[in-house]
Amino acid sequence: MGSLTDIGVSAGLNILSAVGFLLAFAVLRIQPINDRVYFPKWYLKGTRSSPRQLGTVFSKFVNADLSTYIRFLNWMPAALKMPEPELIEHAGLDSAVYVRIYLLGLKIFVPIALLAFAVLVPVNWTSGTLENEKGLSYDEIDKLSISNLGKGSKRFWAHIAMSYVFTFWTCFVLYHEYKVVTTMRLRFLANQNRRPDQYTVLVRNVPPDPDESVSEHVEHFFAVNHRDHYLSHQIVYNANHLSGLVEKKKGLQNWLIYYENKHAKNTAKRPKIKTGLWGLWGQRVDAIEYHQKEIEDLCKQEDEERQKVITDPNYIMPAAFVSFKTQWGAAVCAQTQQTSNPTVWLTEWAPEPRDVFWANLAIPFVELSVRRLIVAVAFFFLTFFFMIPIAIVQSLANLEEIEKVLPFLKPIIERNSLQAVIQGFLPGIVLKIFLIVLPTILMAMSKIEGHTSLSGLDRKTAMKYYIFLFVNVFLGSVITGTAFQQLDNFIHQSANKIPEVIGESIPMKATFFMTYIMVDGWSGIAAEVLRLKALVIFHIKNAFLVRTEHDREQAMDPGSLDFYNSEPRLQLYFLLGLVYAVVTPMLLPFIIVFFSLAYLVFRHQIINVYSQHYESGAQFWPDVHMRLIIALIVSQILLLGLLSTQEAEKSTVALLPLPVLSIWFHYVCKGRFEPAFVKFPLQDAMVKDTLERAHDPTLNLREYLKGAYVHPVFQKNDIYKVVAMDEEEKNPIVVTKRQSRMNTPGGSKFNSSSGGTNEGEFSRVPPT
Amino acid sequence: MGSLTDIGVSAGLNILSAVGFLLAFAVLRIQPINDRVYFPKWYLKGTRSSPRQLGTVFSKFVNADLSTYIRFLNWMPAALKMPEPELIEHAGLDSAVYVRIYLLGLKIFVPIALLAFAVLVPVNWTSGTLENEKGLSYDEIDKLSISNLGKGSKRFWAHIAMSYVFTFWTCFVLYHEYKVVTTMRLRFLANQNRRPDQYTVLVRNVPPDPDESVSEHVEHFFAVNHRDHYLSHQIVYNANHLSGLVEKKKGLQNWLIYYENKHAKNTAKRPKIKTGLWGLWGQRVDAIEYHQKEIEDLCKQEDEERQKVITDPNYIMPAAFVSFKTQWGAAVCAQTQQTSNPTVWLTEWAPEPRDVFWANLAIPFVELSVRRLIVAVAFFFLTFFFMIPIAIVQSLANLEEIEKVLPFLKPIIERNSLQAVIQGFLPGIVLKIFLIVLPTILMAMSKIEGHTSLSGLDRKTAMKYYIFLFVNVFLGSVITGTAFQQLDNFIHQSANKIPEVIGESIPMKATFFMTYIMVDGWSGIAAEVLRLKALVIFHIKNAFLVRTEHDREQAMDPGSLDFYNSEPRLQLYFLLGLVYAVVTPMLLPFIIVFFSLAYLVFRHQIINVYSQHYESGAQFWPDVHMRLIIALIVSQILLLGLLSTQEAEKSTVALLPLPVLSIWFHYVCKGRFEPAFVKFPLQDAMVKDTLERAHDPTLNLREYLKGAYVHPVFQKNDIYKVVAMDEEEKNPIVVTKRQSRMNTPGGSKFNSSSGGTNEGEFSRVPPT
Repeated sequence: MGSLTDIGVSAGLNILSAVGFLLAFAVLRIQPINDRVYFPKWYLKGTRSSPRQLGTVFSKFVNADLSTYIRFLNWMPAALKMPEPELIEHAGLDSAVYVRIYLLGLKIFVPIALLAFAVLVPVNWTSGTLENEKGLSYDEIDKLSISNLGKGSKRFWAHIAMSYVFTFWTCFVLYHEYKVVTTMRLRFLANQNRRPDQYTVLVRNVPPDPDESVSEHVEHFFAVNHRDHYLSHQIVYNANHLSGLVEKKKGLQNWLIYYENKHAKNTAKRPKIKTGLWGLWGQRVDAIEYHQKEIEDLCKQEDEERQKVITDPNYIMPAAFVSFKTQWGAAVCAQTQQTSNPTVWLTEWAPEPRDVFWANLAIPFVELSVRRLIVAVAFFFLTFFFMIPIAIVQSLANLEEIEKVLPFLKPIIERNSLQAVIQGFLPGIVLKIFLIVLPTILMAMSKIEGHTSLSGLDRKTAMKYYIFLFVNVFLGSVITGTAFQQLDNFIHQSANKIPEVIGESIPMKATFFMTYIMVDGWSGIAAEVLRLKALVIFHIKNAFLVRTEHDREQAMDPGSLDFYNSEPRLQLYFLLGLVYAVVTPMLLPFIIVFFSLAYLVFRHQIINVYSQHYESGAQFWPDVHMRLIIALIVSQILLLGLLSTQEAEKSTVALLPLPVLSIWFHYVCKGRFEPAFVKFPLQDAMVKDTLERAHDPTLNLREYLKGAYVHPVFQKNDIYKVVAMDEEEKNPIVVTKRQSRMNTPGGSKFNSSSGGTNEGEFSRVPPT
Repeated sequence: MGSLTDIGVSAGLNILSAVGFLLAFAVLRIQPINDRVYFPKWYLKGTRSSPRQLGTVFSKFVNADLSTYIRFLNWMPAALKMPEPELIEHAGLDSAVYVRIYLLGLKIFVPIALLAFAVLVPVNWTSGTLENEKGLSYDEIDKLSISNLGKGSKRFWAHIAMSYVFTFWTCFVLYHEYKVVTTMRLRFLANQNRRPDQYTVLVRNVPPDPDESVSEHVEHFFAVNHRDHYLSHQIVYNANHLSGLVEKKKGLQNWLIYYENKHAKNTAKRPKIKTGLWGLWGQRVDAIEYHQKEIEDLCKQEDEERQKVITDPNYIMPAAFVSFKTQWGAAVCAQTQQTSNPTVWLTEWAPEPRDVFWANLAIPFVELSVRRLIVAVAFFFLTFFFMIPIAIVQSLANLEEIEKVLPFLKPIIERNSLQAVIQGFLPGIVLKIFLIVLPTILMAMSKIEGHTSLSGLDRKTAMKYYIFLFVNVFLGSVITGTAFQQLDNFIHQSANKIPEVIGESIPMKATFFMTYIMVDGWSGIAAEVLRLKALVIFHIKNAFLVRTEHDREQAMDPGSLDFYNSEPRLQLYFLLGLVYAVVTPMLLPFIIVFFSLAYLVFRHQIINVYSQHYESGAQFWPDVHMRLIIALIVSQILLLGLLSTQEAEKSTVALLPLPVLSIWFHYVCKGRFEPAFVKFPLQDAMVKDTLERAHDPTLNLREYLKGAYVHPVFQKNDIYKVVAMDEEEKNPIVVTKRQSRMNTPGGSKFNSSSGGTNEGEFSRVPPT
């Protein structure tokens, strides 16, 4: 186990690296050449133009104004300055609520830490059991933790009482936060401008009909069963292959631009490439001509595919977006069952157009349940068999173990400074590498499960990732680490002993998790703000691909808050904080530093950098809340297990009501708040309908909705005109009113009054 | 452990008692004097009149026609003769589907038994491990069970394969049955005549409004938010105290009749009673005068209370029955959320008027969740601390134990015949006594939980009762029984060993459960058909209270299928059957006999006797299905546990996919069928609306619905006229069209064309 010195060295190192990242960020961000890396959001909004257009050549690239260097920490107060309503307006509700999770961490843990240091630390410190027992090696940290209490000590009552206080405080904060987020969501939905998804319902599993096409069948069904409300519908094409072709063409076009640029710089020599695999072998040809020909071929293929998609009925999926005359009609259709067979005519709120995950719209009901079974089994194996490599590597990360296995390393390892360095960094980094690979695999699994919206995919992946982190990072670190210390007598223990065993080893793992928080949390967050990867890629693109200002906008990658990746990881800190609050309160300051830093950084990022792909109106909150409750219950059960090994069995019975009350609290919150995230109340729909009518009585809704749910590859092409089941075809296309799909606040408004100021990525497909 | 002889004796005894009951029934049912006990349903339908009206005095009471005695088993084919559609028409869908559960038992277990006897019994029998091992006492039954296989035997593969076959067969039958029941329910709902609950939604938690009364508030809310569909509403009064008074008056009236009858027989002497507790002490008064005065007082109190209920706004509950112009409108309102606060304006389908549990309509949301928490905790304690007495009594029921504790009884016990008798009866009866007390307590708990319909109460109570039976009867019998055989080494074992320990002792408890099935199942069902309790009560009432033919109808207690009481108990047989199918196939014939007999008896009872209080349209089926799946999974886990103790660990891994597949099967069925039991599809509503309009275009729906949801104590009183928010008050009251509330098929039709032929119990409240 690491000693206080180890922790000190590790903390020093991590603080150094974090400060290094922050300094680098502070310098880099004020260089004009990096402006598009650190402020892409403002470019997308159109309120910031390149600072490079003015001044000398030198000042176009490097900031020579020394006064800005002095104020290099300015971004921190700036990040905090924007008030929340403006933040919602600017970055969307999803992002604004997401940063509230970090704030929630502070709200929970600052009072808990104060109380723990005021009550539990003195209780532990003055107990002095460890000092009295001879032959036991212990750290100063252990003296501050629950380990310092002797078996059967009366002082455990202080911990039990604190456990109650912490639970009630956490529940209080959680309840309050759920209420606030619910209010924010409802206000957000009520204040939104008109959006196509408010009037639209996604219908899946349209049953086949021998006499009618899918389109006719949908129209007849809804014209009959929602007689007074049905307006129009948009059928869904299987354009997966087509969008593959479009993607491929885009890549080739990038290469073409690259070679053209190269040729322009050196007109004497035409660039050549080999046509084989990765340009390594094959025939040597002229690169520009080759790519031009390839693109031409692809354009032809694309045209054919486009024609096939529209004319061939096999390309029509048994799904449709059905629009209603009123929001009330749509709310009714989305919340009710349509026919007596619940596996057909499945209706749900249509996701925002940009939130739709098109590839999954056509999966039949039975296949869906088979897919879910397969993914569940695969996920089980992934979760539990992934533990093996972690266990091996972590056991090596214990220096005494390394010494045993490789005794010749002993003289190197036992140099004090090196020991501390390895001890401090190694276990955290081992975990980190595993974790980077994972979310992509889990996202692929969720896609196989067949969810129809990106936001849904994010939420489901986050759940999987959380389970994985819980089993492998949390439980894996606790049990495996101690398994090597307790030698073998652990393997043959039985299932009900697990809370005891974990609980018992929890205090021993405190230093490990402190290191983990510093490496993963502190340094990780500081690296986040630096955006090293985006910086490099932008400059590469800028050097080779950019010819016009428009290209430069394309080269900019604002990135987005990857909910499925970041939320489960941050939940781990809640888990650690709640578990260690009673056991080793020394861990809490580390957590608090993490949450403060992360709050600052993410607030800065959502203001200046990230551009969300979709806006779900904080639909993820019930999941966040539930996982916090899980963390709470786990902390209670582990404390129970720990105390029951301390010969304090009688007093531990006093802890039993806690998990019961926590579960009950979860159900109360679920009943009280969750419907606001799942359903859309009729009263609100009626209010919005009334306002809409008063506000814009002449609105042609059919015209407004036309083309809103056309597959992205058909956007900006007039093909969908043939497609739309609409008699008013003389009118001009409405799609040009759409704003950039990359731009959160603009796109989420999507109202008829906002002109088409930006061109999104989908609109850039050149006319064929 | 009981030997084959014990089982034989026990079987003989139980068959004798069952046959005795059946013979008694065969004789009693053809006596005219008992006609109303054994055929009350036909009286309620009005198609049977008393056979006592014709013939001599003697033949009025005793059946002298010897030919009917010869055909005394006639009722059995008669019970099977009625085809299912007619049965549904006659007894309601609930009853018709309920008897299908017994048929389902036969469908599952007859093929399983055939296969088990063809494959597993020979495999077990020829193994001969028990014969070879010396010093082991065993029974012939054990030679047929899995115990006869040696540890690590290759023959376990046969059992594993059979476990797969049985699981797939069970799932196949379950799926098919769910499908059939769903179709029956949908057809039943589609063919129903017009009923008030089809147009009505129950609204709870109407928020208080400072300016409006509850009634105005409800009207305004629905007139705005369901503009095109809202028709009218009926507010709910807190008439719990009033109905208490009415009940009390009814009891006093019965006593009055009793004393008047007594006086009429012996006019010389006026009956006297004491006014104190239970008539044991206090002043001696004239019984008739006393009761007349008491009733008069009560009438006055009732009148005052009635006035208070109507005039005092505090008696108005924040709940209402809201009716819509179309079934489509009602279906929409019932399935959607009304406002952004999900704890107010809660809507759900209104139960049938006679299915409403009035006392629970006014519980606010937060109180509801507190109540549920309290009941859950109370239920937990009830379930787990109830085990202690069972354990004690059952350990005594083991004869060797009794001998040890009370050695002086040894000579008596060791008489072979007596030993068999005690062994056969005792354990079953001990359990039985416990079980009789219980359902009432559980029903009270469910009432505290705040469900609003009788059918909901039944379902929730059934779930509790099932859990109780599972823990206490099944697990309790298995573990506690063997705990005394395995002495102490069981208590200190850990939680993950439980499947192993239970699995291991399962084969040893086979004879106990065979006895249990015979006592509880065979004799119990035979006693059911005899209706001893109803017979006695009817004759007592007949002797003392009946003056007119009308009184006699009141004295008749048809009883009803108590779903909450009978279904969980019958689930126990499914559990036993599935658990022992692989382990001890000898148990299966006992189960099959039980299901056959029960099917016969219950089909007879629902045709001739029972009158359901309500008709839920087989809404209980998802619960039945789920409990069967639970039984299946339990059987798989226990087999896993058993095999893992038999040194066949490697082959047991092959069993692991079974529970996973079973759980998956549950979710598939849930998704495929359950919505039909929870929601009402809009398409079906639209079809019914269209038919209704075509069929009866001039229907005054407002008039039809008026008074349908008036509290029973106001029925037949014109008070509700003041209450109904209705402008068309000139029209005559419609309530007289209501049929008897005691009568299932009539009441479930509830259509305007059926005249008021019967007078229900609620309509008998004398005018005040």
